[in-house]
Amino acid sequence: MPLSPDHQAEIDALRGSPAQTLRTVAPGMEKHLYTAQPVLDHGFVRVIDYMGDDAAICQAARVSYGKGTKSVTNDEGLIRYLMRHWHSTPFEMCEVKFHVKLPVFVARQWIRHRTANVNEYSARYSILDREFYIPAPEHINAQSEVNNQGRGAVLDGAEAARVLEILKADSARCYDNYEAMIAQDDQQGLARELARMNLPANIYTQWYWKVDLHNLFHFLRLRADVHAQYEIRVYAETICDLVADWVPFAYRAFADYRMGGAQLSATGLTCIRRMLKGETVSQENSGMSKGEWREFEELLSQG
Amino acid sequence: MPLSPDHQAEIDALRGSPAQTLRTVAPGMEKHLYTAQPVLDHGFVRVIDYMGDDAAICQAARVSYGKGTKSVTNDEGLIRYLMRHWHSTPFEMCEVKFHVKLPVFVARQWIRHRTANVNEYSARYSILDREFYIPAPEHINAQSEVNNQGRGAVLDGAEAARVLEILKADSARCYDNYEAMIAQDDQQGLARELARMNLPANIYTQWYWKVDLHNLFHFLRLRADVHAQYEIRVYAETICDLVADWVPFAYRAFADYRMGGAQLSATGLTCIRRMLKGETVSQENSGMSKGEWREFEELLSQG
Amino acid sequence: MPLSPDHQAEIDALRGSPAQTLRTVAPGMEKHLYTAQPVLDHGFVRVIDYMGDDAAICQAARVSYGKGTKSVTNDEGLIRYLMRHWHSTPFEMCEVKFHVKLPVFVARQWIRHRTANVNEYSARYSILDREFYIPAPEHINAQSEVNNQGRGAVLDGAEAARVLEILKADSARCYDNYEAMIAQDDQQGLARELARMNLPANIYTQWYWKVDLHNLFHFLRLRADVHAQYEIRVYAETICDLVADWVPFAYRAFADYRMGGAQLSATGLTCIRRMLKGETVSQENSGMSKGEWREFEELLSQG
Amino acid sequence: MPLSPDHQAEIDALRGSPAQTLRTVAPGMEKHLYTAQPVLDHGFVRVIDYMGDDAAICQAARVSYGKGTKSVTNDEGLIRYLMRHWHSTPFEMCEVKFHVKLPVFVARQWIRHRTANVNEYSARYSILDREFYIPAPEHINAQSEVNNQGRGAVLDGAEAARVLEILKADSARCYDNYEAMIAQDDQQGLARELARMNLPANIYTQWYWKVDLHNLFHFLRLRADVHAQYEIRVYAETICDLVADWVPFAYRAFADYRMGGAQLSATGLTCIRRMLKGETVSQENSGMSKGEWREFEELLSQG
Repeated sequence: MPLSPDHQAEIDALRGSPAQTLRTVAPGMEKHLYTAQPVLDHGFVRVIDYMGDDAAICQAARVSYGKGTKSVTNDEGLIRYLMRHWHSTPFEMCEVKFHVKLPVFVARQWIRHRTANVNEYSARYSILDREFYIPAPEHINAQSEVNNQGRGAVLDGAEAARVLEILKADSARCYDNYEAMIAQDDQQGLARELARMNLPANIYTQWYWKVDLHNLFHFLRLRADVHAQYEIRVYAETICDLVADWVPFAYRAFADYRMGGAQLSATGLTCIRRMLKGETVSQENSGMSKGEWREFEELLSQG
Repeated sequence: MPLSPDHQAEIDALRGSPAQTLRTVAPGMEKHLYTAQPVLDHGFVRVIDYMGDDAAICQAARVSYGKGTKSVTNDEGLIRYLMRHWHSTPFEMCEVKFHVKLPVFVARQWIRHRTANVNEYSARYSILDREFYIPAPEHINAQSEVNNQGRGAVLDGAEAARVLEILKADSARCYDNYEAMIAQDDQQGLARELARMNLPANIYTQWYWKVDLHNLFHFLRLRADVHAQYEIRVYAETICDLVADWVPFAYRAFADYRMGGAQLSATGLTCIRRMLKGETVSQENSGMSKGEWREFEELLSQG
Repeated sequence: MPLSPDHQAEIDALRGSPAQTLRTVAPGMEKHLYTAQPVLDHGFVRVIDYMGDDAAICQAARVSYGKGTKSVTNDEGLIRYLMRHWHSTPFEMCEVKFHVKLPVFVARQWIRHRTANVNEYSARYSILDREFYIPAPEHINAQSEVNNQGRGAVLDGAEAARVLEILKADSARCYDNYEAMIAQDDQQGLARELARMNLPANIYTQWYWKVDLHNLFHFLRLRADVHAQYEIRVYAETICDLVADWVPFAYRAFADYRMGGAQLSATGLTCIRRMLKGETVSQENSGMSKGEWREFEELLSQG
Repeated sequence: MPLSPDHQAEIDALRGSPAQTLRTVAPGMEKHLYTAQPVLDHGFVRVIDYMGDDAAICQAARVSYGKGTKSVTNDEGLIRYLMRHWHSTPFEMCEVKFHVKLPVFVARQWIRHRTANVNEYSARYSILDREFYIPAPEHINAQSEVNNQGRGAVLDGAEAARVLEILKADSARCYDNYEAMIAQDDQQGLARELARMNLPANIYTQWYWKVDLHNLFHFLRLRADVHAQYEIRVYAETICDLVADWVPFAYRAFADYRMGGAQLSATGLTCIRRMLKGETVSQENSGMSKGEWREFEELLSQG
């Protein structure tokens, strides 16, 4: 349960105070505003604010393309056209602001997406709470043997238990010592900006994260992908659900063209054309390396 | 009068359709939504949407700095502190979207500010309207003799009249020929993407421009400055007025610390310290070049 | 012939003055340094400086992925892997700086790519030269009838001649009047920042443009594409040739995965899987709109 | 001593292999290439590559401002002019790439500067080394009592010793357990992407960091500032020394106008004008808050 009673009361107050606006309102997003969507054991994602909706994407596109977009008779068709042809700027006209609570090692991956605005809780100024991510047993996996990154099978019970014990004990001890170093009773107390270095990467931090829809889609394509680390993927999936309610046309186009689609190389396209003509194509005569051919075969056999 | 009756009717309809929202509402901005603020002879600036207000800046800052910001007892004090100490990320948490109609030569300066989202009317897809910026006689100036950029005195009546005649005649002729080239009656009609090259830089274009408050302040500091070209400055000044109503605390801090303030060099600071001790400082013993000293003297004698 | 004798002498001097460096040197790029590659009637692209080569991309990837990249036995294989899996940051480790001379209407398209550094010749400070883009007759096309943007057939001789006459006459007259307005003999002379508004969009400007390889590839994918306007495409194609000599492995991977490849939607992938199983798929049972199906069929039948 | 013999041999080999180039060469930077500048107990900064020099800044400015810059008779004067008047784009024409080894908590501050390219060592793919930042006793300070961020007095010997003992013991234990979890002898071995969460924020990571000179100056102004945390400031200071050798004119202008200068508010400027006229100005009649007045007085009394 990630929310304190105070925090919940604040959310209830915000949700109980509607106001009038002349701006575009997205009903699918209004219903989610401020509410904390739980993620992992102590994390959450909350929508704090948003700008625009599906119609705002079309409005911007029609400024750009003028009469050229009149021939597309409906908004969903236009949005699909824009997504298919990489017209990214109309999607930049929507913006969303999240409040996210997340483990530091997830935050470190997340921040690599640079085209966004961030205000993170500062451990130079303030004292971090005693909250650590401890994976559920079913998410404790072995190192993958085929993939230098990524996970293999779930660890067996005894080894998973041993890992859990280590993670819990080290988190607790490091936090005890963090507190002991900054304590201010009869000693001077270490500066917070120094004491924080004793805290492991599974401690939770939080931030406000604001991003436009185009860059959010880019983030989601990489982080909601099956190859992304589980601990960031669950945040991305939570955000996918929110975006699907906010801009349903744009989200469906994204799901079809980006998340569920695939980028084929010129070589791959040529192979497909040959196969459709009835030719037997194998790795040897494909022009692809073994690794690339394996990925290509998987792509064609899915579903 | 920049608006067609259709456009005005659309604005009236939008302004007549309030809806409920749970988001932060900035009353000072609601009153401006959609309305066209006239700029130059055919241009305008309209607020299409916004996200956040003064309180949203503080909210983001308090996430970052936690209890550290509790000691600042009020929002305006906190916002002034943030502005003074270059804490820029909380200001990035506000966003605004404008619809702007502007001459192409102004658009070319404006677009150099890269941290913003833009959808411009496309002359590849659509036909531009016959609207050109023709300066008022009081804004037709000679080349400055002291400044390689910038304007000198207003041209005298006869020369100004000659300039106006040229600008009007060339605009009209170029547009007539633009129309003649794309006409589709008994000839094939030149592609729009080619025909547009015949149009001079005082033709009007329009775009949606979306930017966060931090980057907007940066734009305003440079473009509302007295050294900016008049034709972009009037857009920046119009936006200043809108921002002052949207986020009054942030705008006042910006006006005090950025617009009205000045960056002093180490050398300049040393000179001021010497002067305050009663020493007579001149260009010769200041450590500054002549040009720099002239700017320094102007700074100290203003007001 | 775009270069003045002075400019050519400067290039010869620069090319005649090699120096020693400890930095990575890309021989394929050294041979192009400073030389002007002609584009259109008066334009050019020149490489002014570069940082990195194929090995620098691998070096950065190996910092990131550590031992994970050791299993890829050669640099080209690693670069193809990075491109295929959208690992964009190693490509950002290469940088290139161009000097480009181009018509203003091309510059207006180009500048929409915001992740780059630009210094453009300023018509506020300086006087533009009398150089205008006048298309060759074989590039004067009618408006496309099937595509709201883009060109159709080449205009027939008489109409093309009429267009050329208009473009030449209007360019000349506008420039004559530009000169007349800024002339400083017996009149005050209009400020340059105002006079420039009389110049049409086919006048040439120039700039320094600096960009990293990842963002350059993004630019090239859009602007060297067959759907890009001819006048910017020729610049992109010229740059493609330079990049192919600079980072041959990266360029080949880009050509295979991006330029020659295609993004398939989930719907499109499903159709291909059905077709490969022998099913007859038509637009009606494809799940695609007519426009999308037409693009899909073209993709599968090319080559 | 942060370098392994292998690493040192690699550096020696690179430094022993000069090549010819036609590019601009900055002799002051060539002497630093590849060499590791030690920072903190195990960190370093190394220049891997650079593009441009002082002359390249002027070259770009002269493209922009054309004849307008001819009146500035020398490069240093022009560079000072550009810096004083916030003409930032010419400085963007220089680029530098560093290899940096740094504690994770420093990396987390550093990465907030988004306009840069980064490739970081990935603990998903690879195993981190057993290297932790343990502060020297003279850098172990108490929490500041006047400043919510920042440090107060150096801790006394006994308390500093206690802190050091904690940091060392927790680092060692966490790393032992990290190793134990990923070990692959008779157990399956936890995935690296999970095991890394047990590592505290004083473990060292490394990255390639590439940035243009304008954005580097912005980073240095904030991070070489006296208010920056010591552990990032020493990196910034090391980089300052490298930049001073690379682009001496630009660095001196930066030191004078940015590092050593100050931003005065409109209110502050007015106070200075009043004081120079002989008026006695106090906080009460200054128009400033107490905190702001204190900062203002400090500024005027320094040196």
